Amino acid sequence: MNGTLTIAGLGPGADAMVTPQVAAALAQATDVVGYIPYVARIPTRPGLTLHPSDNRVEADRACHALEMAQAGARVVIVSSGDPGVFAMASAVFEVLESGPAEWRALDIQVLPGITAMLAAAARAGAPLGHDFCTINLSDNLKPWAVIEARLRLAAEADFAMAFYNPRSASRPEGFARTLEVLNEACGDARPVIFARAVSTPAEVISVIPLPECRPEMADMRTMVIVGSSATRIIARPGRAPWVYTPRSVTR
Amino acid sequence: MNGTLTIAGLGPGADAMVTPQVAAALAQATDVVGYIPYVARIPTRPGLTLHPSDNRVEADRACHALEMAQAGARVVIVSSGDPGVFAMASAVFEVLESGPAEWRALDIQVLPGITAMLAAAARAGAPLGHDFCTINLSDNLKPWAVIEARLRLAAEADFAMAFYNPRSASRPEGFARTLEVLNEACGDARPVIFARAVSTPAEVISVIPLPECRPEMADMRTMVIVGSSATRIIARPGRAPWVYTPRSVTR
Repeated sequence: MNGTLTIAGLGPGADAMVTPQVAAALAQATDVVGYIPYVARIPTRPGLTLHPSDNRVEADRACHALEMAQAGARVVIVSSGDPGVFAMASAVFEVLESGPAEWRALDIQVLPGITAMLAAAARAGAPLGHDFCTINLSDNLKPWAVIEARLRLAAEADFAMAFYNPRSASRPEGFARTLEVLNEACGDARPVIFARAVSTPAEVISVIPLPECRPEMADMRTMVIVGSSATRIIARPGRAPWVYTPRSVTR
Repeated sequence: MNGTLTIAGLGPGADAMVTPQVAAALAQATDVVGYIPYVARIPTRPGLTLHPSDNRVEADRACHALEMAQAGARVVIVSSGDPGVFAMASAVFEVLESGPAEWRALDIQVLPGITAMLAAAARAGAPLGHDFCTINLSDNLKPWAVIEARLRLAAEADFAMAFYNPRSASRPEGFARTLEVLNEACGDARPVIFARAVSTPAEVISVIPLPECRPEMADMRTMVIVGSSATRIIARPGRAPWVYTPRSVTR
């Protein structure tokens, strides 16, 4: 009996952004594993068992999924967005590397999804249209000093920047520091996009000049995109402006 | 008569990665505009006019699409991958900004797609599972000195790196220089992923230690992903290894 493990991205929230290959994997699954709100997006049906689990148990969840696949199940681990960007794919490979040798022969597939930064960028225009970097601002998994060094180097490189997990209720101070570092390192009024709950009915997109940004403008459901020094704004009548980064460094 | 302009991402090649919202936009389009090989992916049907155009005419193409939308057409501009990552969305906003004021009132939507780096990363494992940067290596649109400075800063920040357009037939020397800079700045044997024609029947994925990389391993259809210093390899029996970057900086 050959089981399979598929690590699939559900996109940021809208069903219209779930790729057909992810939908097909879900239609053939015997077991779906994931963080509670993501598993809640999967409709129940006969023959499918849902295994929702809490946040911060990624390693246990990965282990459980690998064990079920090894035993012959067709398991799908669901992530929001793309599973390879600050999500379950790395957690699975971490557990796989330290696990039993037979896991390495398992049929494992990673199916990409629309990650939050691309969905947020699309709603705002094209702020990631030139070179950019992507940073997880959570300091659960790395020291703050590493985050600060990366922010300063990213500003020096003049990357646009996309931030995941900008601000949690338990550690609200990191994003305040991020804004301080950016104001110091960038020294201009480049646009910052706050995209909350992108592609859901609760979506809110705001565009704020960097010096006017406040920590409380972000929470854990917010994707933050900071323009480069070249990022431009196009005002629109009665609507939020378009924000885009030109393709060329010099024109 | 209200026209619309939709800037849509077709993903890296497989139809199974085209999102339902992009498929719906194409089903309602009167006109599809884009680079020849991308427009060739769109099936013809009564009521739909295809407007394929050559490479390097992005501004003309954007202008044509805006004019048709202004005249009442339902226009879709297609990009490979995601339209916001080194693709048509920035070109449209550049042209929009300098065009007639009435264009700013047009109904414009950007629909994200699976960009090549996420599709390539998924095939290799999870190399972009921690902080990373995304750089267009083409020096058509920026001076080489900017690219080199960004490579050195990205190495110092210990980002994984995803490179688009690594090497063209007309300017093959840029990627050779890139490898020289990376070997000097990184000084280790971190894995480099060469992902050619991802998600198509011609797909080839190779994983090569940085010091063994050669410029001719990449062409314009290749996505190159360079690990960070923390990126790990998991050998597999009879298959290419998994490559992943752990979620934590220190464990």
